[in-house]
Amino acid sequence: MRVAVLGCGNVGSALVSLLLRDRDGIAERSGVRLELVGVAVADAARARPEVPAELLSGDAKALATTDDVDVVVELIGGVDTARELVEAALGAGKAVVTGNKALVAAHGAALARMAADAGVDLLYEAAVAGAIPIIRPLRESLAGERVRRVMGIVNGTTNFILTTMAEEGVGYDQALAEAQRLGLAERDPTADVAGHDAAAKAAILAGLAFRCDVVDADVYREGITDLPAVDVAFARRLGYVVKLLAVAERSPDGALSVRVHPALVPASHPLAAVRGAFNAVFVEGEASGELMLYGRGAGGLPTASAVLGDVIDAAHNVLSGTAAPAPARSPARLQPIEDVTGAFYLSLEVKDRPGVLAAVAAVFGDHQVSIRSMEQQGLGEEARLVFLTHRAREGDVRATLAVLEALSAVDHVGAVLRVVGDEERP
Amino acid sequence: MRVAVLGCGNVGSALVSLLLRDRDGIAERSGVRLELVGVAVADAARARPEVPAELLSGDAKALATTDDVDVVVELIGGVDTARELVEAALGAGKAVVTGNKALVAAHGAALARMAADAGVDLLYEAAVAGAIPIIRPLRESLAGERVRRVMGIVNGTTNFILTTMAEEGVGYDQALAEAQRLGLAERDPTADVAGHDAAAKAAILAGLAFRCDVVDADVYREGITDLPAVDVAFARRLGYVVKLLAVAERSPDGALSVRVHPALVPASHPLAAVRGAFNAVFVEGEASGELMLYGRGAGGLPTASAVLGDVIDAAHNVLSGTAAPAPARSPARLQPIEDVTGAFYLSLEVKDRPGVLAAVAAVFGDHQVSIRSMEQQGLGEEARLVFLTHRAREGDVRATLAVLEALSAVDHVGAVLRVVGDEERP
Repeated sequence: MRVAVLGCGNVGSALVSLLLRDRDGIAERSGVRLELVGVAVADAARARPEVPAELLSGDAKALATTDDVDVVVELIGGVDTARELVEAALGAGKAVVTGNKALVAAHGAALARMAADAGVDLLYEAAVAGAIPIIRPLRESLAGERVRRVMGIVNGTTNFILTTMAEEGVGYDQALAEAQRLGLAERDPTADVAGHDAAAKAAILAGLAFRCDVVDADVYREGITDLPAVDVAFARRLGYVVKLLAVAERSPDGALSVRVHPALVPASHPLAAVRGAFNAVFVEGEASGELMLYGRGAGGLPTASAVLGDVIDAAHNVLSGTAAPAPARSPARLQPIEDVTGAFYLSLEVKDRPGVLAAVAAVFGDHQVSIRSMEQQGLGEEARLVFLTHRAREGDVRATLAVLEALSAVDHVGAVLRVVGDEERP
Repeated sequence: MRVAVLGCGNVGSALVSLLLRDRDGIAERSGVRLELVGVAVADAARARPEVPAELLSGDAKALATTDDVDVVVELIGGVDTARELVEAALGAGKAVVTGNKALVAAHGAALARMAADAGVDLLYEAAVAGAIPIIRPLRESLAGERVRRVMGIVNGTTNFILTTMAEEGVGYDQALAEAQRLGLAERDPTADVAGHDAAAKAAILAGLAFRCDVVDADVYREGITDLPAVDVAFARRLGYVVKLLAVAERSPDGALSVRVHPALVPASHPLAAVRGAFNAVFVEGEASGELMLYGRGAGGLPTASAVLGDVIDAAHNVLSGTAAPAPARSPARLQPIEDVTGAFYLSLEVKDRPGVLAAVAAVFGDHQVSIRSMEQQGLGEEARLVFLTHRAREGDVRATLAVLEALSAVDHVGAVLRVVGDEERP
C-alpha cells in the first residue's frame, strides 16, 4: 500500500521515520506492507535529514491525487489548505488519515459525507488525545452503546499547569512559565489556556459519541487563565482536583451540552489521577458503565503512532475494497449553558461582620440554589466563604452571583467552578 | 443481520435484552440492523422472562450452523462444548463473537486460523476486562506498534480484595468474606484468588500484543491467598499499592515473559488508582508511550456491551464481505521466571540481636542482589526487616531467599513481591 504524507513537522517527521525505519516490522506485525511514496513540504529544496530527497515534493495537491497513492496522510494543520487537500484526495478516491483537530472540528461532518460518498475511509484517531485510542473505541467498540457523558482531559498543556499549581502550590503565571520552559506551552499559550484546543476536541468527541454534527463554534468554553491558586488549594483541601474538562453530555430531555471549563474532580475519580501532560477520556455508557482511556495526548512520536494505526486500518480496508462504517449523523440540538445542571464550587470574599453569612445564604435560597457545605476562612477584615452547592441549574447560579456581586457586604466573587459528582464511584 | 446467541446466563441474558429492547436505537447508532433469531439454552422448556419462548432452542449446534444466521455469539463458557460449537459455526462460515476467556486462552490460535481460513471474523473483546475496549485497540490501533510491556489489573475480585485490605486495613480472609457477601467472589474463590482467571487473560493479551501463540498453561502464576495484611500496609507506607498484575513483556533478548502475580505499584502510577472491582490494562509501546484503558471488568451488562460492539463489527464485515485482519502469529519463546529481572520487596522476621542485619545483608551481596532501601520494625524479641532491592534477576533473589531461610537468625521469610518501577512517570 502506497502512502503519501502531507506535512513534515513534528508528527509528520516522526511518522516518516517510523515508516522508513521499521517497514518490515510494521508489515510483520500488521500484515500490510506500507510504502512511503512521497512527503509534501512547503520547501522541497530544503534538505531534511530524516527524509530521502527523492521523496520530497513541493506539490501537495499533486501528491494527494496521484494514481500512485492509496492512502493520503494530512499533517499540515490549519483549516483552509488542509481542507482543500483532503477534499482533493477524497475526490480522487484516496483513503485519508488526518491528525488535524481544527479541520475535523470545523468540517468533519461534510468531509465524512464526502468520504462515505466516495466509499473510502476518513480516519482521525490522532486528532483527539494523541496516542490514546479514543476515536476507534467510540466509533467501533461503543457503536451500539447509548453514551450518557464523555469527559476528557484533552489538553496536556493546561493539565500540566493545573497539576503544577496543585502539587507545588504555585500560581498560574509561574506554572505557565514552567510549562513554557519545558516546551509544553507555546510562547503565546492562548489556544491552550483559553480552551480553544480543547473545544475543538470536545466537538469531535461529542459528534462521535452522540452521532451528531457538532462544530467547535458550538462549544461553550472557559479557560484556566483566571483560576486563582487559592481555589486550587482550597479544592484540594476539600478532596478535589481542578482539571480542565471537555464535556459532552445528553440531558434527560435529549438536548446535548458540549462545553470546556475547569471543574472540580473528586480525588478518588480516575480523571483525578491524570497528571502532568497526560490526557484521558472518561466515557459513561448505559450498558458499558464507566470507561477511561489514558495516555500521551501530544508529542511527535506518540501522535504518529496513532496516525500509523489509522494508516494500517485504511490500508487493510483499501485491500479488501471496503471502508470503515460511518453511521448517519443527525443535527445536534444543543443545550444552552444556562440550562445545564450540576453542582458548583463558589468562592466569595466578604466583609467579616455579623449578618453577612445570613444575607449571602438568603440570596442562594431566593434562587433555588441549595448549599451542600460552606467553609469560612478569616482574612483580616475580610473573610473568604467557600460554598459547595447541590445540583443546580447554571442559570440560577448565575442569577445568584449577579445579586451577590451587588451586595455591599460582598467584596469580590472569586472562582465559580463546576463540580463533577462522585456518586457512582466504588 | 441475523444473530444467534448460545448461552443465556448473566452476559447472555443482558445481551438478549439489549438486542430486543433497543433494536432501533442500535440500528440508528451503528448503521446495522441486528435481528435476534435464536437463543440456545440447556433447557428450552424452562420459561425465561427476558426471552420470547419462540426464540429459545435446546439445540445449540443446529442454531450455530443454520443458514438463517450471520453472526454466532458464544456465551456458554467452559472449553470443550464451547470449542465444538465455535468450530462448527466457523466451519459453517459464520462470524463468531465470544466472551469466553478460557476457550480463547486455550485454543485461540487454532480458532483464529480456522476463522482466517474461512474468511470470517472471530472476535472476543469481552474475553478480557469486560467492557473495556482492549482487544480492538491492541489489534487495530496498535497494529503497527512495537509493544514493550502490557500490565493489567484484569480480575475484579482480587482487586476488590486488595483494595479493601489496603484501605480498610483488614486481612485477606475478611476482605474475601466481604467480596463474597457483595457477590464479587464465588463461594469457591480459587479461580480468582489463585490467579487462574488472570492467567487466561494474560495469555490472550500477550498473544495479541506480541503476535505470538501463548496459552494459559504458559503463564507463570502466583495468587494473593498468602498475602499478609502487614505487607499491604507496609507497602502503602512506602508509597506503593499492592495489585494483582497480569504482565506480558519482551526482554531485551527477545524472549517473552508472561506472568501473573501480586506486585507493588507506585501510588502515582495510573494502575494504583484502579480501585474496587474495576479493571485496567496499561500498555507501554515504543512510539505510543504509555496507554491505559480502564473500566468495568465484569458484570452482565458491561460485558454484554463489549459483545455487542463485536457483533456490530462482525455484522458490518459480513455486509461488506470482509473480515477483521488477523496477522500471522509466531510461536512464543518464553522467558523462564528465574531470568526475569525487576525490583523486589522482601519482608523478613529476624531475631532482634546484634550482627543479624550484617549477616542478612551479606547474603544479598553474595548473590548480586543490591539493596535500595531497608526499614526495620521492632516486634518484641524479633524485628521485621523490609527490603526494597534494585533491579535483580529473579533467580538470584530466590537463591538469596533460600540461604536466608536457612540462617538461624531468620525466623521467617514473609512476602516476596515484585515492584513495578516508576522511573518514567511524570
